[in-house]
Amino acid sequence: MKPMGSIPAEFQGEGPLIIAGKPAEAWIAQAGDTPLFVYDFAIVSARIARFRAAMPAGLDLHYAIKANPFAPLLAAIAPLVDGLDVASKGEMALALATKPGAAISFAGPGKRDDEIEAAIAAGVTLNLESEGEARRALAAGERLGVTPRLAVRVNPEIELRGSGMKMGGRASPFGIDADRAAALAKLVVAAGADWRGFHIFAGSQALDPRAIIETQAETLALAARLAEQVGVTPPLVNLGGGFGIPYFPGEAPLDIEMIGAALGESMTSRLAALKDARFAIELGRWLVGEAGVYLTRVIDRKESRGETFLVVDGGLHHQLAASGNFGTVVKRNYPIAVATAATQGETETVSVVGCLCTPLDRLADRVALPVARPGDVIAIFMAGAYGLSASPAAFLGHPLPAEILAGAADSPNAILTS
Amino acid sequence: MKPMGSIPAEFQGEGPLIIAGKPAEAWIAQAGDTPLFVYDFAIVSARIARFRAAMPAGLDLHYAIKANPFAPLLAAIAPLVDGLDVASKGEMALALATKPGAAISFAGPGKRDDEIEAAIAAGVTLNLESEGEARRALAAGERLGVTPRLAVRVNPEIELRGSGMKMGGRASPFGIDADRAAALAKLVVAAGADWRGFHIFAGSQALDPRAIIETQAETLALAARLAEQVGVTPPLVNLGGGFGIPYFPGEAPLDIEMIGAALGESMTSRLAALKDARFAIELGRWLVGEAGVYLTRVIDRKESRGETFLVVDGGLHHQLAASGNFGTVVKRNYPIAVATAATQGETETVSVVGCLCTPLDRLADRVALPVARPGDVIAIFMAGAYGLSASPAAFLGHPLPAEILAGAADSPNAILTS
Repeated sequence: MKPMGSIPAEFQGEGPLIIAGKPAEAWIAQAGDTPLFVYDFAIVSARIARFRAAMPAGLDLHYAIKANPFAPLLAAIAPLVDGLDVASKGEMALALATKPGAAISFAGPGKRDDEIEAAIAAGVTLNLESEGEARRALAAGERLGVTPRLAVRVNPEIELRGSGMKMGGRASPFGIDADRAAALAKLVVAAGADWRGFHIFAGSQALDPRAIIETQAETLALAARLAEQVGVTPPLVNLGGGFGIPYFPGEAPLDIEMIGAALGESMTSRLAALKDARFAIELGRWLVGEAGVYLTRVIDRKESRGETFLVVDGGLHHQLAASGNFGTVVKRNYPIAVATAATQGETETVSVVGCLCTPLDRLADRVALPVARPGDVIAIFMAGAYGLSASPAAFLGHPLPAEILAGAADSPNAILTS
Repeated sequence: MKPMGSIPAEFQGEGPLIIAGKPAEAWIAQAGDTPLFVYDFAIVSARIARFRAAMPAGLDLHYAIKANPFAPLLAAIAPLVDGLDVASKGEMALALATKPGAAISFAGPGKRDDEIEAAIAAGVTLNLESEGEARRALAAGERLGVTPRLAVRVNPEIELRGSGMKMGGRASPFGIDADRAAALAKLVVAAGADWRGFHIFAGSQALDPRAIIETQAETLALAARLAEQVGVTPPLVNLGGGFGIPYFPGEAPLDIEMIGAALGESMTSRLAALKDARFAIELGRWLVGEAGVYLTRVIDRKESRGETFLVVDGGLHHQLAASGNFGTVVKRNYPIAVATAATQGETETVSVVGCLCTPLDRLADRVALPVARPGDVIAIFMAGAYGLSASPAAFLGHPLPAEILAGAADSPNAILTS
């Protein structure tokens, strides 16, 4: 038997799984079929409220919509956050349906001219990734007769220790090396653009609060040095994100209150060059990841050479990361449960595999679960971020799953077969 | 500098890249934009001809459409092969547009009742993956009043040495353990179904012909033992596939002539229980993988800490496997070229990264390429199998790429923005 990650507290219980007040089968009935993603918006809004309570005043919260671009979810989140971060023209169009351009920033290393023009026309801030992109953005602003809103994305010397994805401290396609960032900001200012400040992103999916505290302090210090070099106060310093969620055995939720207290001190004692700057943290996974549950029905139960397999009607085409095939080297088990099991009593060791005809499609490897039979429903947790949109949905020609947003005030039980 | 795999012989040359007689820019002009997949059908038909010449008489060739389900490609391949193997109801619908149900088989561990019923109604052979699925198929046949065509998929004791994906020799969700396969075939025969024989698949992506020869001989021996136990000659023995293509440095094309000669001997000397059986090999990747080229334009060229990055307008959302994030543990470089470079002369060391805002989106890591600038086109080879359909195309909200089939007689330059 192999361990699995912890089920988020909101979904722990003795009986069959309850999501946003209703059993899994009720959500399936509403969707019409399995597989299915259900996002509990109460969990998202609780995360946002916790962030606001923990963090210092003057700190904006941005949602990085790449984590989950499901339109009803985005519409529900947008009023609760200060900004939206997008990574393509497609994401920008989704964001503009819920927020004005001035509250949106666009980062990404390969922005095409048509994307740059669309962003400038909509008043969206471009986080510049290189000198070449800066030249193209300034030229596009002239062509359009619109003053572009431009921030400088910095590739910092800072490395976020223990982060799942390091984006600083190394040669990188993201941002401009810190030693060239002030010069680029000066060029942007001198060209008459609306300089929006710095975007400094050192890594993501970190669970050690001390590592995040250290990185944020270094990021503030770097921003202050750069601001001094530029000689103009940056309107906004985007400190990046990096808040992780506990997917795997032995991981624990992040202590964001500790981070907020330390960040408050850093901000209070910040250097004069940043005195009038605003600050932002951009989060995707931490806001939505734990709110999502992927529900998939057991189609077959089979034995092979002494091992038991539950074959489900979902798979890696909807939840690639849970299969261990997206950005992870070692396959570890996401938290998983039998949603229709009456008790958490006696268990057996089973592997849960998807319906795809490839050995990669293993959603749980030899985990302890209550005995499940065809017709039972399996729940895979931590499915709210980098789930459906980050999976090869067309692989092997299966239908797209439904997505349901549960518990949002303005879009009650929004449902969409995307 | 890190090595890359070899460019397929059909695309090697001194000047700018020529695909099916035309330069890359001509295909891009036809598609209207980058990124783009071009499949050269002459390469596919050459592979099929080579297979026919190398393999013994009495051996059918099936195309496993999961490798590439692009409809114009499938329509061009179908007349040249004896059967199509599908893995979902969606793939079955594509296959039925080009072949009668009797030439189609459906394998996959999690077939739903609606999939089973659709297959039986269409006269498609179901490769049974478990005793439970056999019961469901027999019941569906009764409900529909149609005699189901049923083959038994066997999980063999055989392991395909050196294969990229082992599917035999271990506990598996695929097929029925060999020691229970004859009993299931007897049950199928006794129930009055149209028993179609055995499907025995030991692995895929193997490049050692001796390993494939050994596995095929063992597979024939296993099929003969099972046929003796059943007491009925299996109409068809599907020997699986396993023919690999050379993606990476140090890999060489498979010697299929050696395999064909050995298989001819094995088939000639086969046991009496298989005397009247037909045989089939099912191939996906080997038929189409080398025929595909992914073309993507350089958007930015940037330096970071002494490294040079080419940022392109494509990425892992179209070519996940090339980024090393799909079923591979170690990132190695697919063959790649600057399609618009006039010579293969002087080179520099660059990394080619996609436009996605994630460090996973690295298409080539520190390879030697001719100097390329924004506007140049990068070609990533080996893009004909498990490319677009096996990638998270919706990730980060970019448009879908076009796909072009070049050089098919019946669908000249078919183009589809899928």
